[in-house]
Amino acid sequence: MNLKTSFLKNRIDADSPNKNIVPVTTLIDNANKLSIGGCSIEDLVLKYDSPLYILDEITLRNSCRAYKKALVKYYPGESLPIYASKANSSIFMSNLVASEGFGLDAVSEGELLTALKGGVPNDKIVFHGNNKSDKEMEFAIKNNIKVIVDNDHDLKRLEEISNSFNRDIEIMIRFTPGIECHTHEYIKTGSLDSKFGFGIESLSKLFEAIRKTKHIKLIGLHAHIGSQIFELDPHNDLGEIMVNVISQAEKFGHNIIELNVGGGLGIKYTEEDDPPSIEEWIKTVSSSIVKACNKKNLNLPILMCEPGRSIVSTAGVTIYKIGSFKEIPGIRTYLSVDGGMSDNPRPITYQSNYSACLVNNPLNNNSKNKYTVAGKHCESGDVLFKELELGDCKTGDLICVFGTGAYNNSMSSNYNRIPKPSTILVCNGEAEIIQRRESPHDLLRYDVLPDRFIKQS
Amino acid sequence: MNLKTSFLKNRIDADSPNKNIVPVTTLIDNANKLSIGGCSIEDLVLKYDSPLYILDEITLRNSCRAYKKALVKYYPGESLPIYASKANSSIFMSNLVASEGFGLDAVSEGELLTALKGGVPNDKIVFHGNNKSDKEMEFAIKNNIKVIVDNDHDLKRLEEISNSFNRDIEIMIRFTPGIECHTHEYIKTGSLDSKFGFGIESLSKLFEAIRKTKHIKLIGLHAHIGSQIFELDPHNDLGEIMVNVISQAEKFGHNIIELNVGGGLGIKYTEEDDPPSIEEWIKTVSSSIVKACNKKNLNLPILMCEPGRSIVSTAGVTIYKIGSFKEIPGIRTYLSVDGGMSDNPRPITYQSNYSACLVNNPLNNNSKNKYTVAGKHCESGDVLFKELELGDCKTGDLICVFGTGAYNNSMSSNYNRIPKPSTILVCNGEAEIIQRRESPHDLLRYDVLPDRFIKQS
Repeated sequence: MNLKTSFLKNRIDADSPNKNIVPVTTLIDNANKLSIGGCSIEDLVLKYDSPLYILDEITLRNSCRAYKKALVKYYPGESLPIYASKANSSIFMSNLVASEGFGLDAVSEGELLTALKGGVPNDKIVFHGNNKSDKEMEFAIKNNIKVIVDNDHDLKRLEEISNSFNRDIEIMIRFTPGIECHTHEYIKTGSLDSKFGFGIESLSKLFEAIRKTKHIKLIGLHAHIGSQIFELDPHNDLGEIMVNVISQAEKFGHNIIELNVGGGLGIKYTEEDDPPSIEEWIKTVSSSIVKACNKKNLNLPILMCEPGRSIVSTAGVTIYKIGSFKEIPGIRTYLSVDGGMSDNPRPITYQSNYSACLVNNPLNNNSKNKYTVAGKHCESGDVLFKELELGDCKTGDLICVFGTGAYNNSMSSNYNRIPKPSTILVCNGEAEIIQRRESPHDLLRYDVLPDRFIKQS
Repeated sequence: MNLKTSFLKNRIDADSPNKNIVPVTTLIDNANKLSIGGCSIEDLVLKYDSPLYILDEITLRNSCRAYKKALVKYYPGESLPIYASKANSSIFMSNLVASEGFGLDAVSEGELLTALKGGVPNDKIVFHGNNKSDKEMEFAIKNNIKVIVDNDHDLKRLEEISNSFNRDIEIMIRFTPGIECHTHEYIKTGSLDSKFGFGIESLSKLFEAIRKTKHIKLIGLHAHIGSQIFELDPHNDLGEIMVNVISQAEKFGHNIIELNVGGGLGIKYTEEDDPPSIEEWIKTVSSSIVKACNKKNLNLPILMCEPGRSIVSTAGVTIYKIGSFKEIPGIRTYLSVDGGMSDNPRPITYQSNYSACLVNNPLNNNSKNKYTVAGKHCESGDVLFKELELGDCKTGDLICVFGTGAYNNSMSSNYNRIPKPSTILVCNGEAEIIQRRESPHDLLRYDVLPDRFIKQS
């Protein structure tokens, strides 16, 4: 292994994959070519075509285990990490996190189905969402899946359902803790402008309302303060706020045994990013809850947290094949790849930055060039990188984009009727398909031409 | 009909649907309820569920006919309007535009297949794209579909193919005319810094290179200067520039018989928007080409243009059902609907604005409230309207969002494993399915769990 250039020179922290740009099994072989999970990327594309999503099993498991290990180390009470499946929902991912002892958080019937098919025990699934449909709510109740009550509408329906079945239903409630955090912005306010959860100022009224129901048992609290967070202070504050809310709830006779602090731990997309480790994050979260519970003389609740991005993002890469070049003298050189905004909508949606390298020359062992990497879609904004430094390259060469395991596949579209790529799992030199590639024909499957048009044309 | 409040009060211009916010058949019945194409929206949702995409056939046909009529009126030469299918690609849309005498522009194998299945004659299809795959290129050639050469890579491959078959291939080339259009950054394509097309300064070299090929026949020029444009001047300038390039090409012995001016005509999403009519746009385009050709003493080329949004956007609406409400005192009231960023990614991607009304009270015949309309996705940015004025409403009421026919369905995703809605065609009181709804189960279809995981869990 020789990772001496650019972001590839960083030592790989196998214990906290979110602190790396690349999967923990990333290697550069003697021919100066990239491999992940013991598989040559070139060979994978020969076999499975491009664009290609790849997930590295070791990175996934190391991430899961880092959470489990840190919870055991720093939290003296019971705990359950819960995978936020919106980051990358598949039967495989559900199965993997379940095998690591994780629960799973779902926000739709589709995500719930996926979790169950993947073998996640129903008592470890939580059902989130600011606008659960009646059908979804019934599906969750029927499958004994815990509902996180987000608003009055959820509560009202659960009350109706529990009354009609004359049966107790255990719930958690989601509230906005007055902390909002998005990477570099950390705001504390009394009232949060979010579509999710109950305002913290409305909780007394809510606790009283729940107390008066016949069958609703409030057993847990949930809060989530943001995503891709690099600071630890907000989660330190969150622990204290949540424990205060336990006290408040107990005054209304509720016995809060579960505390779900949400997710938010950031990952390293580029060299500018420096997130805390999984261990540091869990240590902060655990310590603040333990300290606050001791202060209030409360039993430790079951600690839950909801990592998504920090489980799956660094484990995933996307491989593209280079097609056309367009040099605009004095302005820039465009290099087009065979995917784009359909398989990775984050650059056009959030102006997200990634790191990438050539598969057959990861260390740029020749002159460096700056390229604007464009996708193949009929949209000017379909640009994955504004300025990417790469060695000399040509049509047919492969580019590996790192950190694409989260919110790429899950947010992908079929814009321009472009099929979604396969996902390949790599581990110890073996490659397995975990999501099949769509074909262009598949995309016409839902189209219907009414008879009168068939006759006419 | 009584369209006296808010944007619904505007007189409907049936001859240029892009100048309206609502489909031309929009009515409010005696019970103060919304209908489109003679169909009660409430009845459609009872039958087909929500969210629901609806397309109005009359609006679609009026838009197509406005282009055809204006071309006949203002352009003395031959002409062919070409539907930019990326705006909304389906077998139905392909069939409809073909029945109105349109051609179709496609940018992928999926869009090409859709056009052919819809009955668009192959000689009226053009194949665009900054990075056509080899497979797509072969598909186009095999089906005798005209390729718009975007870059040197396209030209090189076509030369190889034509040589190997020892057969002539007719092409058009796309160039960037160097016109800046002041519209949204992401949809600006006319400037020099674009991934699409040949720079205008490189054309002499290109014309010479094509002249030297054995089998490539350059018969046409293409340029596109942007989308959602409200001014006419840029297209006036474009005509003159393109005719100058015909002269330039003819000096190299090429006989340019087709001139494709792209698309770009804006539509009225909100009351702030005031696009020109289809007739005004075609008049401008035609006049500038006729004038420039007369000046240069050139035969009139076949005039092509590529409307997409102005054909399909105003014809389409999306119906959502209201779920939960969340009032944040002193800040805002959130109202959540049963769709969101998956069926309409334009607000989160482009900060796009739309108009909307309640289906059972389109004119806000009671107190007005301002709502922030949120989607059901697990994403804070999943907000369709920041401040929408609506009458009193409650859970279960329906909202109709106008102008969603273009780039909603075509850019839709399955984020959070939410199924894509159906599309219903309405006309003269009849409703027909033209795209079936996905089910949550459908979304698991591509997932594969390798055997070793099945055994393990």
